[in-house]
Amino acid sequence: MAGADPAAGVASKLDFDGPRILVPVAEAIALVAAILRASGFPADIAQEVAGHLADADLCGVESHGTIRVLQYAEQAASGYLRADAVARLVPAAERGWPWVDGGGGIGIPAMRLAVDDATDQALRDGIAVRALREAGHTGRIGAFAERAAERGALAIVIGGGGRKNWRQAAPHGGRKALLPTNPYSLGIPGGDRGPAVIDFATSMIAGGWLHSARAAGALVPAGAIIDSEGRPSRDPAAYFAGGAILPKGGPMGYGMAVMAELVCEAMLGPATTECNWLVLALDTSRFGAPARMREMAEEMLAELRDCPPAPGFARVEVPGERERALRAANLPRGISLPERTLASIRALAARLGA
Amino acid sequence: MAGADPAAGVASKLDFDGPRILVPVAEAIALVAAILRASGFPADIAQEVAGHLADADLCGVESHGTIRVLQYAEQAASGYLRADAVARLVPAAERGWPWVDGGGGIGIPAMRLAVDDATDQALRDGIAVRALREAGHTGRIGAFAERAAERGALAIVIGGGGRKNWRQAAPHGGRKALLPTNPYSLGIPGGDRGPAVIDFATSMIAGGWLHSARAAGALVPAGAIIDSEGRPSRDPAAYFAGGAILPKGGPMGYGMAVMAELVCEAMLGPATTECNWLVLALDTSRFGAPARMREMAEEMLAELRDCPPAPGFARVEVPGERERALRAANLPRGISLPERTLASIRALAARLGA
Repeated sequence: MAGADPAAGVASKLDFDGPRILVPVAEAIALVAAILRASGFPADIAQEVAGHLADADLCGVESHGTIRVLQYAEQAASGYLRADAVARLVPAAERGWPWVDGGGGIGIPAMRLAVDDATDQALRDGIAVRALREAGHTGRIGAFAERAAERGALAIVIGGGGRKNWRQAAPHGGRKALLPTNPYSLGIPGGDRGPAVIDFATSMIAGGWLHSARAAGALVPAGAIIDSEGRPSRDPAAYFAGGAILPKGGPMGYGMAVMAELVCEAMLGPATTECNWLVLALDTSRFGAPARMREMAEEMLAELRDCPPAPGFARVEVPGERERALRAANLPRGISLPERTLASIRALAARLGA
Repeated sequence: MAGADPAAGVASKLDFDGPRILVPVAEAIALVAAILRASGFPADIAQEVAGHLADADLCGVESHGTIRVLQYAEQAASGYLRADAVARLVPAAERGWPWVDGGGGIGIPAMRLAVDDATDQALRDGIAVRALREAGHTGRIGAFAERAAERGALAIVIGGGGRKNWRQAAPHGGRKALLPTNPYSLGIPGGDRGPAVIDFATSMIAGGWLHSARAAGALVPAGAIIDSEGRPSRDPAAYFAGGAILPKGGPMGYGMAVMAELVCEAMLGPATTECNWLVLALDTSRFGAPARMREMAEEMLAELRDCPPAPGFARVEVPGERERALRAANLPRGISLPERTLASIRALAARLGA
């Protein structure tokens, strides 16, 4: 049963110190799945999406957690998402690649299908690429890169092409929101603690943080957004009133966003639902024995863990390990949600009779 | 003939306002090629490397320009590089990929071979990957990603595995130099002005800037390096005295560096000369007609060029266009070198009898 969270805020990147509620995982999944079913999603898709969102919360990635059910239900109600769509694999045309047609539905099962099918072919033929088109939000993409890496693949996932509907980030040197947040995720088998996974927006923050921060009444980190006049701000409302997110690392994040738009729109064609995705999978075992790879990876990752921390840091982290450690620690505790977020979700469930 | 440069500093990222000399391109290439030949490099390799370095200077990428001949000659003299090595394509083993063996020599012709061969196969089969091992410095890798993109490929080039010899960058949250600068380059066909190309170190600056800045007596940008105690510094000497470069974009640049080390060392095996490289090439025409791709790219890139600039910026740039514009503008003028850099190069030539 849900209750006040005494360790509130510890595992969250969100700048939010208001009251939190601990919700058991099964209860969170059941609540979200019921809302999705009441919104018209088939039961198996509702269950998969609810499980994915709960996992993101457990991993400390609140921006892509349970709160997203509010967005998905709204998008299904408005017709932005086709709730009853089922993703399908489209066979390759001559000289082309198989691709995944999301059918205009929620992108989480569609991304799983694209990543699994690319990994299958990579393990068979050495390398594979899949386009994912006509799918809505794909959840926490790091979860999918990790899934491919657990099977021995290097996975590269690039999202873009949605800028006409998602003018979120300013180009480096510009003051107008023109680009989406263009996420990338890479996963690769690691050392003794599992795959290394990175998953980032090329903008300073993902769009999800702004929604989460606004819903929770929190601020966004300094240096992340500008208001409509190009002035720095920490208020998510300034962003929603014509502001923009800044690119991460200046020219680097901007350059990666430009590449993602060219890959996912100019190359893959117009993004009809949200954005398009390119999924690349490479069989790492074609270059050397997995045991040697694991040993060399562990040696390198151990060096990083042992690095003396800079002032203000407790330790150096290996990408992917924090999420797994948080998942393991949080699983028996439950999901910690800002009180306001949980209230919004319950109000929605009541409204839908879920 | 070389002469004082009246437009000194305009086209350089280097924080250097000392006197500069304009050197005609053919003269710079002849001088560099002569030094390389006198250092034991075969004439055709000397010519290719000298041309590559001159092109980097023309493109405004001084850190990877003519100044590098000092490093290459020193590395040949010390035995770090095998001057007489010739890169060769090694046929694929069963279930593997062909790869390029740099033979311990300079990496510029070896990278050209890897990128060209990957692009050949990608245009034939849809996608290809090549490892490049046992090669020294590969010059300005953006030049190679651009070369593949001009043929219609999406190219992804990742360098790493050299951290045991190149402890340059601190991990995010750490204060010790553990990682190399782990460069990435991506190129893709663009709009009417040619390919979009990004080329960056995952550290705040490339190692080359520190060498260039030290040689020219210049400072490095604020926020780029820490000294041996973890304190911010702008003095390249602080870096060479036990300091570190910071990762670009914090966790993003650090995460990409970790991936590059895992790809290029754990997956590709130990880097025996400098670092290893993974080159991926994908035929973009398998997803749609090149004419449609170009049209959609141009529409997107034009939006970016038209973005109102932020305070302190003259305009928003499209990645790859500045280098090409500088090349075209500088070609008839010549290469602008800091007086001290040119003096060092000429002194080396005299010492070698080149």
